[in-house]
Amino acid sequence: MSKVKIDYSLYLVTDRTLLGERDLAQGIESAIQGGVTLVQLREKSVSTKEFLQLAVRVKEITTRYRIPLIINDRLDIALAVDADGLHVGQDDLPMLKARELLGPNKIIGVSASTLAEALLAQQQGADYLGVGAVFNTSTKSDAKEVSLEKLELIKKSVSIPVVAIGGINITNIQQVMTTGIDGVSVVSAIFAQEDILMAAKQLRAVIKNQQKTDI
Amino acid sequence: MSKVKIDYSLYLVTDRTLLGERDLAQGIESAIQGGVTLVQLREKSVSTKEFLQLAVRVKEITTRYRIPLIINDRLDIALAVDADGLHVGQDDLPMLKARELLGPNKIIGVSASTLAEALLAQQQGADYLGVGAVFNTSTKSDAKEVSLEKLELIKKSVSIPVVAIGGINITNIQQVMTTGIDGVSVVSAIFAQEDILMAAKQLRAVIKNQQKTDI
Repeated sequence: MSKVKIDYSLYLVTDRTLLGERDLAQGIESAIQGGVTLVQLREKSVSTKEFLQLAVRVKEITTRYRIPLIINDRLDIALAVDADGLHVGQDDLPMLKARELLGPNKIIGVSASTLAEALLAQQQGADYLGVGAVFNTSTKSDAKEVSLEKLELIKKSVSIPVVAIGGINITNIQQVMTTGIDGVSVVSAIFAQEDILMAAKQLRAVIKNQQKTDI
Repeated sequence: MSKVKIDYSLYLVTDRTLLGERDLAQGIESAIQGGVTLVQLREKSVSTKEFLQLAVRVKEITTRYRIPLIINDRLDIALAVDADGLHVGQDDLPMLKARELLGPNKIIGVSASTLAEALLAQQQGADYLGVGAVFNTSTKSDAKEVSLEKLELIKKSVSIPVVAIGGINITNIQQVMTTGIDGVSVVSAIFAQEDILMAAKQLRAVIKNQQKTDI
């Protein structure tokens, strides 16, 4: 999968605990059917074996729909399932080490909550930035806050794609998109909704509308 | 480091929480000075970044003393520091996947608590087995029990080195060594002791004594 063709516009980050009794792989499939363009498997508090088993199932789905699969934090899992890439936070593997171990052809995304972190990640070869939290978020309690002004500044200061994350939902997505970013990452706005396919579809519709306005 | 020359006799498995205020790298250095022949970095509840930082420091010490360094569970960390090997439990990466990603020259150890698990691991190319828990252990609450009779049976049934683990200390190490195994893994018996160097030295002395008896 060529790195230049990635559509970052609606980036689903998983959290299976939001699904209740619902199946993770089915949840992801519904989200993709609704218009998710990229999937990041971010699962905490699981054994390596369980993470791998989840990743194998999810990879089967993302491959079927030709949607890139990014693994959060765990380079071992990314290698084990030959995922399309890895997303590293500031407490994960350093960008340079991740690139050294994954090679030039995998997508590597880096979380940034300051301009300095964003510029460093770009300089070190990150393929995209996840910038946030732009709003209060229940799914990542340690996330620092990033104002929309700062988000816009970061977007204007780098040449790689910027995806906003943190508390983005159907009520504020349009406001976030006006900053000129390349896409939004959502967790609860899709996975905590009763109708996952419809939730993704509505978010995607707002994004498409905004993209038209930009042109 | 050639795989055939590994001395499994006194295998330190780390748990920095046992050290209190003491430094992990210093604790490992003292243990090596006391006679530890192999070190496994097993640290839970740390971020990937912190695990990597610990591994980098420990690798510097093990390299200096020419003691092999094995990383528990996390193949990403093993790759990142170019460790000598990886130890996988039954909830970690499958043996075959670990071998595929690490190649033939790295040591891979597998935890086994049954003869079936031991035989499968050997068949899949494990370099050694960690068998236990042979006694009650406070450092791994989910460990299944393995009697000394079963340990001896496993040792006789495989051709790869067998290391016993679980609650082994200065009072029971001689009894465990009589089963003919290749070494013992210890955590608390070294790291929970006030004088780490002396604790390792005393364990090593019993092992050397037993090895003489065997000849």
